[in-house]
Amino acid sequence: MKIAVDAMGADHGPGVVVQGAVAAAGEYGLAIILVGDRDTVDKELAKHPIQGLSLEVVHAASVVEMDDSPVAALRQKPDSSIRIAINLVKEGRAAAVVSAGNTGAAMATTKVVWGAIKGVERPAIATTLPSRKGFSILLDAGANVDCKPFHLLQFAIMGSIYARQVMGVAEPRVGLLNIGAEKIKGNELTKAAYPLLEKADLNFIGNVEGRDVYNGRADVIVCDGFIGNVGLKISEGVAEIITDLLKKEIKGNRLAQAGALLMKPVWERLKKMTDYSEYGGAPLLGINGACIICHGGSNAQAIKNGIRVAHESLQHNLTGHIAQNIVERGTISRLLNNV
Amino acid sequence: MKIAVDAMGADHGPGVVVQGAVAAAGEYGLAIILVGDRDTVDKELAKHPIQGLSLEVVHAASVVEMDDSPVAALRQKPDSSIRIAINLVKEGRAAAVVSAGNTGAAMATTKVVWGAIKGVERPAIATTLPSRKGFSILLDAGANVDCKPFHLLQFAIMGSIYARQVMGVAEPRVGLLNIGAEKIKGNELTKAAYPLLEKADLNFIGNVEGRDVYNGRADVIVCDGFIGNVGLKISEGVAEIITDLLKKEIKGNRLAQAGALLMKPVWERLKKMTDYSEYGGAPLLGINGACIICHGGSNAQAIKNGIRVAHESLQHNLTGHIAQNIVERGTISRLLNNV
Repeated sequence: MKIAVDAMGADHGPGVVVQGAVAAAGEYGLAIILVGDRDTVDKELAKHPIQGLSLEVVHAASVVEMDDSPVAALRQKPDSSIRIAINLVKEGRAAAVVSAGNTGAAMATTKVVWGAIKGVERPAIATTLPSRKGFSILLDAGANVDCKPFHLLQFAIMGSIYARQVMGVAEPRVGLLNIGAEKIKGNELTKAAYPLLEKADLNFIGNVEGRDVYNGRADVIVCDGFIGNVGLKISEGVAEIITDLLKKEIKGNRLAQAGALLMKPVWERLKKMTDYSEYGGAPLLGINGACIICHGGSNAQAIKNGIRVAHESLQHNLTGHIAQNIVERGTISRLLNNV
Repeated sequence: MKIAVDAMGADHGPGVVVQGAVAAAGEYGLAIILVGDRDTVDKELAKHPIQGLSLEVVHAASVVEMDDSPVAALRQKPDSSIRIAINLVKEGRAAAVVSAGNTGAAMATTKVVWGAIKGVERPAIATTLPSRKGFSILLDAGANVDCKPFHLLQFAIMGSIYARQVMGVAEPRVGLLNIGAEKIKGNELTKAAYPLLEKADLNFIGNVEGRDVYNGRADVIVCDGFIGNVGLKISEGVAEIITDLLKKEIKGNRLAQAGALLMKPVWERLKKMTDYSEYGGAPLLGINGACIICHGGSNAQAIKNGIRVAHESLQHNLTGHIAQNIVERGTISRLLNNV
């Protein structure tokens, strides 16, 4: 059970990816295939003591850049590192993929090469967010900008299975991201999705508001990919402006600088608590295989955690559970007949 | 030119509203009508030196609560403070309304009592946000959860006029809130709205992402009211969780407490920079009259600034400019014929 790691395409270059892969191979005893430019990857591997670790390199001639469109990546870069990593799973040479590259390209490529799980209309990107109570999972984070109510139901089912099987939440609370707590609130999409979620075999807690995203009210938050993407980027924007304003105000103020220094352990704890590198990346849910996308700006720790999550997804048979729940449990067909 | 101020309905009670109104009457020499329970308002007025100020009280028997639905407020509370304030303008006894109460109820009531400006299909709530470069205006902040591309165009026109006439921005940069910078990005709504904005007589800078909301890239940011509402509440959630985590980490750590104390002026500057009370509330744009909604949690300073903005909206004939631009300049009809 090898894990294919896309060594290229991360913001900070192949160095951090290789370092993370080496750490995962050592710490968890996993077999890893690094996919990327062979010379580059070999050079990075040479920097680490890798005796006894199961690490191999598969060459890839090109890289999907962050601003390549998913379609362009698919059509014009058949020899990219992400494509070859995904192919390795198709060929049975690896069991899962981890990448810190272009999320849209990974989604499009896995959909084409692996296909969607039978019954899943729209695979989704699930993001793990820090919250007051640990973490929560938000999906879709950007794969599907226009959704139907039924898609939100599928997101809720897939997110719940991920939370339960991989993140270890016994009865994941599912919330529908909306503009108010009352059932009647919302736009056409959320008003139609609410009764679907209510009737489904889920621990549905009703609507949650933007304010609730980080306060831990729900373990799984469902929304369309447009809202998901804009909401996540707004969050980053708020955190950035607060940090920037703080730095600006501290600069040139010696007392405040001393104060900031005394608060150093607090900043570090805060950073750790809100650090995505602790949470192991975003799984693509609903495709026929395990693919974990790490943040573009990942450090080695984030890559290592992404590999761990990929491994856990395999161990807990995430794909199988999703397939079983979507098709066999009958939730979907029952609902389709009722609605 | 009197300004009717809804004395009730604010989170912190009539005291802060009356205090803000007294301050505005004194500082700007404005004539103000306080609308609310007469005994309560009189009691609050008695706490201030109001000799020489133009302050009168109009009694209102009920209050629209924050969780009243707009429809219920309209139908069941014809004697509410917000309704009577809005009626005062209709009757020519006041020229503008300021309220820190239920935004949806104010929007619904002004639409019914004053009507929309001719040609405006969807009046919108414009929110003023702090940004790296001062402030920006985001609309719609929640009045219209399902929008057509044409509505986003009208939001852009109205927001630009507000930014120019009231906020003093010469050529307001208009951005379309989207999931990517490229023209082809987005959902059905934003992809269809882009060419409308491009063709209109606006300083349209293209798509802006969630990250750009607070970095000052645009002066006016347009989006549907669902995204606007969720995005604003997510922002509040992020700021809250950061503040809470900081407080929690500082508690019980004496060095960090000393550090936080040394940083006190920094916290205060930061608070001031991000404080909505400095920005004077959210105008309802597109209705036939001036109505400014202050944050529910407003302090007296925020109410005073809201009254100032209402006064400036009147002085600069905001409603007239919107009416002229929407109908006479022909932007809309021209675009309607083209699209």
